[in-house]
Amino acid sequence: MKIVKSIAEMKKISHKIHSSSLKIGFVPTMGFLHEGHLSLIKIAKKMSERTVVSIFVNPTQFGPNEDYYQYPRDIKRDKELLKKEGVHYIFYPSEEEMYPEGFLTTVKVKKLSEILCGASRPVHFEGVTTVVLKLFNIINPDIAVFGEKDYQQLVIIKKMVMDLNLDISIVSGEIIREQDGIAMSSRNTYLSKEERKQATCLYRSLLIARDWIMAGERNTSIIISRMKEFIKTFPSTKIDYIEIVDPETLNPLKRIKGSARILLAVWIGKTRLIDNLQVNV
Amino acid sequence: MKIVKSIAEMKKISHKIHSSSLKIGFVPTMGFLHEGHLSLIKIAKKMSERTVVSIFVNPTQFGPNEDYYQYPRDIKRDKELLKKEGVHYIFYPSEEEMYPEGFLTTVKVKKLSEILCGASRPVHFEGVTTVVLKLFNIINPDIAVFGEKDYQQLVIIKKMVMDLNLDISIVSGEIIREQDGIAMSSRNTYLSKEERKQATCLYRSLLIARDWIMAGERNTSIIISRMKEFIKTFPSTKIDYIEIVDPETLNPLKRIKGSARILLAVWIGKTRLIDNLQVNV
Repeated sequence: MKIVKSIAEMKKISHKIHSSSLKIGFVPTMGFLHEGHLSLIKIAKKMSERTVVSIFVNPTQFGPNEDYYQYPRDIKRDKELLKKEGVHYIFYPSEEEMYPEGFLTTVKVKKLSEILCGASRPVHFEGVTTVVLKLFNIINPDIAVFGEKDYQQLVIIKKMVMDLNLDISIVSGEIIREQDGIAMSSRNTYLSKEERKQATCLYRSLLIARDWIMAGERNTSIIISRMKEFIKTFPSTKIDYIEIVDPETLNPLKRIKGSARILLAVWIGKTRLIDNLQVNV
Repeated sequence: MKIVKSIAEMKKISHKIHSSSLKIGFVPTMGFLHEGHLSLIKIAKKMSERTVVSIFVNPTQFGPNEDYYQYPRDIKRDKELLKKEGVHYIFYPSEEEMYPEGFLTTVKVKKLSEILCGASRPVHFEGVTTVVLKLFNIINPDIAVFGEKDYQQLVIIKKMVMDLNLDISIVSGEIIREQDGIAMSSRNTYLSKEERKQATCLYRSLLIARDWIMAGERNTSIIISRMKEFIKTFPSTKIDYIEIVDPETLNPLKRIKGSARILLAVWIGKTRLIDNLQVNV
C-alpha cells in the first residue's frame, strides 16, 4: 500500500494503471474510518483491479459554524485498517495541495443542493461536488463508491457525473449499522453515553414509518407526524427535517406509491445526525 | 472530415484516438466562423494529430435579454471552411444533447466571472465554464485553443483547468483584425454600415492608450480618461467599461509596470463589442 500526498504523483500512478488496462475503484473519505467505509472499499475492490481511497477532511464542505476543527482524525489507525483491506493507494493530500492560494472554482448541482441537508447547510454540497470533481480528475477512477447513509450526496454526485458527461460509474453501498441500529458515522464519537442512547431514535423512527407504510398508510404527512411525535419523546433531540421523497429526484411525495426514500436529520444535543430508509410498496 | 452529433459517439472517437497515442487539439466555437476561428484551428492542427472543432451556440451563456436567438448561424458555410482547413471532426450537438431535461449542474470561477464583462453579463461566464467543462469531458483534448479576443474568458478557462486539476493545456491565439483594425467577431454582422465605421473606435482607442504609455504615461486613470474622451466623439457609442488590469489576475492596476492588459467593452448602437491589447513596459 502506497500513501500518495501529491496530486502530480497520484495522476502519474493513475495514468500508469490505465496504461496497463486495469480498472481503478475509488472511495473518497474524510478518514476516521469505520465499518461503513470499509464496506464501500470491499465493493470497490470487487469491481476493480486497483483501489484508491482518499482521506481528506474537506474544509469547503463545512459551514463557518460547523465542526471542521473538531472533526475526528486518526490517520495512523486509518492506514492500518486500509492496509488490512488490501487497498493499493491512499491519496492523502494537504489542504494547500487541494486548495492552493487563489483557488476560485466551484461546482454546484442546483436545486438538489438547496433542499433537505442543503437547507440547513447552505455551502455543504457545493463543497462536496467541487472536491469530488477534483478527486475524480486527479484519480480518474472507472468506478467510485459512495455510501447510502449520505443519500442526498449520492443523488447529487450521480447528477453531477451525468450532467458533466464524466465516464465514471457511481456505485452505492448500503448503510452499515451498529447493533442497536444507529447508522455508522464518524460523528457518532461526539455523542455522550446518554446522547448515544437517544440517537437510536432516528433509525427507530424510520422503522416505525416503515411499519405504518406496510400496514397500508400512504399519506406522507401522517407518517412524518408520527415520526416527529416519536422523536420528540427523546429529550435531547431537535428535528432538523423529516421528508419522504422520490428516490431519484428527491421531490417530496404527498402519497407513497412505488419507491420512496424517508430521510431525516436530527440534532442530538450539539451533534447533527442523519439517516434514511428506502421503502417500496 | 466527420460531423458528430452524439456525445456517446464523440466519446468513442476520442477514446479511439487516444488508444492510438495520438493527440487531440480542440477548438470550441459557436460557429459562423471567421479568420479569427481559423487561426485558432491552425494552431490546434500544428500542436496535435487530430483536430476537433465544436460548433454549439450555447444558450446558457446568453442572458435573458441578450442575442441568443439572433446570433448568426451558417453551418453549411462552417462545414466548408473547416473541411478546407483539414479539420478531422466537427462536434455539432443539439441543445437537447448537451442540456437534457433536468440538467442542474453549473461550474463557476468566482470573482473572475463577476468583473469586467461579467458585471454587465452576470450569467455569461458561468454558462461558458459549464459548457467548456462538458466539452472537455466529452472530447478529452490534450490541448484546447482559445482566442485572446475574449481575453477574460481565456483567463477564466485557464483558472478552471488549474483549479479542477484537468490535464489540458490551454493555448491562446492572437486577435485577428480586419484591415481597419476592428477585431473579428461574429457579432460584427449586426452592425450597419455607419456603425461599422464607428466600431473602429475600440481598437483606435487601444492604440491611443498604447501611444500614451509608450510616451511615458503610467497613471491608468489618466489613460482611461483619454480613451473615454476619444470614444465619446463617436455618436453611436456607449462605453460599458474600460479597464487596465494585471494580465493574469485581472486585478485593476493604478499604475502600469511590467505587463498590463487594456480591456474594453463598448456598445455601438445595439451591438456590444469587446477588444483588448497587451502592453509591456
